[in-house]
Amino acid sequence: VSSKEFCRLGWRRAQRHGVRMLLALFVVCGSTRAGEDPVAIPYDPAQTIIDAALGDTYAYDRLGELCDQIGPRLAGTERMRAAIAWAVQTLQQAGFDSVWTEPVRLPLWERGEEWARVTSPEPFDLTLLGLGNSVGTPPGGIEAALLVVESFEELESRAAEAAGRIVLFNPTWRGYGETVRYRGGGASAAARHGAVACLVRSVTDASLATPHTGMMTYADSLPKIPTAAITVEDAGRLQRLARRGAQPRVRLSMGARTLPEVESFNVVAEIRGREKPEDIVLAAGHLDSWDTGTGAHDDGAGCLITMGAARLLLQMGLRPRRTLRIVWYEAEEFGGIGGRAYFQAHRDELDRYVAALESDSGAFPPRGFSVQADSTIVQRLQTMARPLANLEAAEVQPGWSGVDIRPLVQAGVPGIGHRTRADDYFHYHHSPADTFDKIDPEALARNVAAVATLLYAIAEADAPLRPIGSATAAPGSHE
Amino acid sequence: VSSKEFCRLGWRRAQRHGVRMLLALFVVCGSTRAGEDPVAIPYDPAQTIIDAALGDTYAYDRLGELCDQIGPRLAGTERMRAAIAWAVQTLQQAGFDSVWTEPVRLPLWERGEEWARVTSPEPFDLTLLGLGNSVGTPPGGIEAALLVVESFEELESRAAEAAGRIVLFNPTWRGYGETVRYRGGGASAAARHGAVACLVRSVTDASLATPHTGMMTYADSLPKIPTAAITVEDAGRLQRLARRGAQPRVRLSMGARTLPEVESFNVVAEIRGREKPEDIVLAAGHLDSWDTGTGAHDDGAGCLITMGAARLLLQMGLRPRRTLRIVWYEAEEFGGIGGRAYFQAHRDELDRYVAALESDSGAFPPRGFSVQADSTIVQRLQTMARPLANLEAAEVQPGWSGVDIRPLVQAGVPGIGHRTRADDYFHYHHSPADTFDKIDPEALARNVAAVATLLYAIAEADAPLRPIGSATAAPGSHE
Repeated sequence: VSSKEFCRLGWRRAQRHGVRMLLALFVVCGSTRAGEDPVAIPYDPAQTIIDAALGDTYAYDRLGELCDQIGPRLAGTERMRAAIAWAVQTLQQAGFDSVWTEPVRLPLWERGEEWARVTSPEPFDLTLLGLGNSVGTPPGGIEAALLVVESFEELESRAAEAAGRIVLFNPTWRGYGETVRYRGGGASAAARHGAVACLVRSVTDASLATPHTGMMTYADSLPKIPTAAITVEDAGRLQRLARRGAQPRVRLSMGARTLPEVESFNVVAEIRGREKPEDIVLAAGHLDSWDTGTGAHDDGAGCLITMGAARLLLQMGLRPRRTLRIVWYEAEEFGGIGGRAYFQAHRDELDRYVAALESDSGAFPPRGFSVQADSTIVQRLQTMARPLANLEAAEVQPGWSGVDIRPLVQAGVPGIGHRTRADDYFHYHHSPADTFDKIDPEALARNVAAVATLLYAIAEADAPLRPIGSATAAPGSHE
Repeated sequence: VSSKEFCRLGWRRAQRHGVRMLLALFVVCGSTRAGEDPVAIPYDPAQTIIDAALGDTYAYDRLGELCDQIGPRLAGTERMRAAIAWAVQTLQQAGFDSVWTEPVRLPLWERGEEWARVTSPEPFDLTLLGLGNSVGTPPGGIEAALLVVESFEELESRAAEAAGRIVLFNPTWRGYGETVRYRGGGASAAARHGAVACLVRSVTDASLATPHTGMMTYADSLPKIPTAAITVEDAGRLQRLARRGAQPRVRLSMGARTLPEVESFNVVAEIRGREKPEDIVLAAGHLDSWDTGTGAHDDGAGCLITMGAARLLLQMGLRPRRTLRIVWYEAEEFGGIGGRAYFQAHRDELDRYVAALESDSGAFPPRGFSVQADSTIVQRLQTMARPLANLEAAEVQPGWSGVDIRPLVQAGVPGIGHRTRADDYFHYHHSPADTFDKIDPEALARNVAAVATLLYAIAEADAPLRPIGSATAAPGSHE
């Protein structure tokens, strides 16, 4: 029984056949440190990978550099260029076989100066973050009476009051997917009824006067009005004032604008496959972040989890049968621009992808993986993930994979989303609080362990996760 | 058995004597609403007070007005004057027998414009709040290399590095009392070694990029250097950068200054005692707040808990034997200036105070009371508080009472601190997150219930809590 087959056989069957004992005696030649002599060590691949990951601070240390020394990395900006330079250097030093960048063209959104102030009934300043893609106000800002609503439905029922007003959406938190609709589509919904600007309560379930930004989009047919997130605290106060009949007025000034396209880059690194270098297992995070906080959980963590996992295999001398390709995408926060650029540049090799994994749910304790692929593949991944049970990271279910890998998944590549126990994620998400102090080194190491174990199993498996050469056979079949 | 005696007898003895049944049949004449006819109702005073408080939203509604409509109320400012005007009107409308203001002279501290920016190794903005009483910087600010230390001890051991630097204290949270020493005394400790400014990690055990301000004081013999709190996030990042050898530089600009004394006011309201109007039970909160957030827990809550408790007794027709005096102090946040002014103005009546209660631990679920008085008084208060057991508010222990009533307590008046289950208090304390949305109406009502019950017991008790007329006999005896 070879180490490759344990993946295919599955843990239960392996145990029945006494494979576990055999595995414990299985010997590979591996070098644990670059420059050291290769040593022969007995190991169980999964548990050995897990143990090595849990004893390693590499991902944590590099994530600290990225967050603290580079800082926030808004797509297309000078800081993102600094992050890309750091990324190339770091990936090279980590010993990947090849490291390169691939161009991504993207419109450059600039925040500019921004402020908002209640001018009536009593003046007070609002804490805000303009939303990504928003237009700015005229110089000096816009002042108007506020219309506070809790939902799209309430806006529709009060549509006659919206003209000439600034609409504030103050929706109760009902989970991210439900609540983020106001951030994404609030401005055009308000513009449809003649509003001159739109404010949105920050999309979070916990606030200490913390604003949360994020992407918005305009409907083509409607006027583009400026839009910003304000804090839960300010939104609540304005709603209460309005309910008491105070008719608040707000002056909003935003210097936001979108400049012509600039060139930026995805960063790619590879460990060439030992036997089938033409087969690719892609693992990705996104290097860009919002310009507030330092992009620690979103998504410095995903970059270091995937890269840290691949590097760990290298360090352990576990070069897998297939190629492991790490991609750190640009401009995920602006709707996956980097992911689409990668897809376009790699259209001719789609039949080479065994799977694509994306890690973009922070460095909270690992849970497992959600999979966009047919049920046979989900079942194989469930088997591969069983050794992660002790990490409480063995949950594999059908579900969303990731924004960046979506074009690949739509083209038929099995998509795997790395999942964490992210109950606190939205406390930090897109806010100044998404910083390195929120990263628990032990949880980060457990994520590296989980992803390294699964990537190794996929890249090493005797039979590929799906029939290679059929990538374009069923485009969009997983969505 | 009279209702007054139940307090003295204690719950256990009362139960043994069947007093509880008698109390249930005890009848008083009381009007439950101004303008309605007095009605005769059977009641148990404590439980009737508690039930009435739990069904009443008065305190919550008024606290909403204070926080949302008046907003932050920095001592001596125009907003504090607006709060005082609101207070007088509200207390009058609540039906107190008399409402008046008493002058408080205080130096006016102005925050001015303030910002801080790391200039090296990579520029980024710091989120800060200048500390109350701090001087400002010269125009354009001060730029210097940072010396990051975790403690006074580390500063002393690195004293030679401090000259010409900005010292950042980044102490680990070890409870408020221990950690706040850096806010209060960090600047002079740094100035002693030639530092040009001082930054302090915000004094809190939880942060979402939230700065926390508060009072500081200068040692007379040392240069006054500007000082501000920065967020936990920024402080941690700077410490990590320094540990990695990055030698951060910071430019700090603060427009803070202290203007000559201005006149402001404490606000006082009274329910005259039914039989002994000359005996005073004082209950207090402080009306001033910091200029960030809206002073909801600190200490709008204490104002409305004490006042709401007294008003509730009025509404129930339970005018107690002794006078209940509500004081809403000015300038507690600047070291209890209002409390000292009140004491000076009332020196000639110190022998009239039966007790002084202060509520300044927010509107979290009630816990009980901590008492600065001799053990006999603590025991009597424990007995009086027993009916609060169902509210989980019956804990009475020796301990700190309050900043504002401290001069009274030092002069021998029994001091009572209202205590809540304030585990989350420092998440909000002195920060933009101390806002009305953090107030739980049910917890607030329970606090009103607890304070009203205790105040009634003290003001109604057959025997006063201490021998009246002996107030100045043992000055300072409780500290």
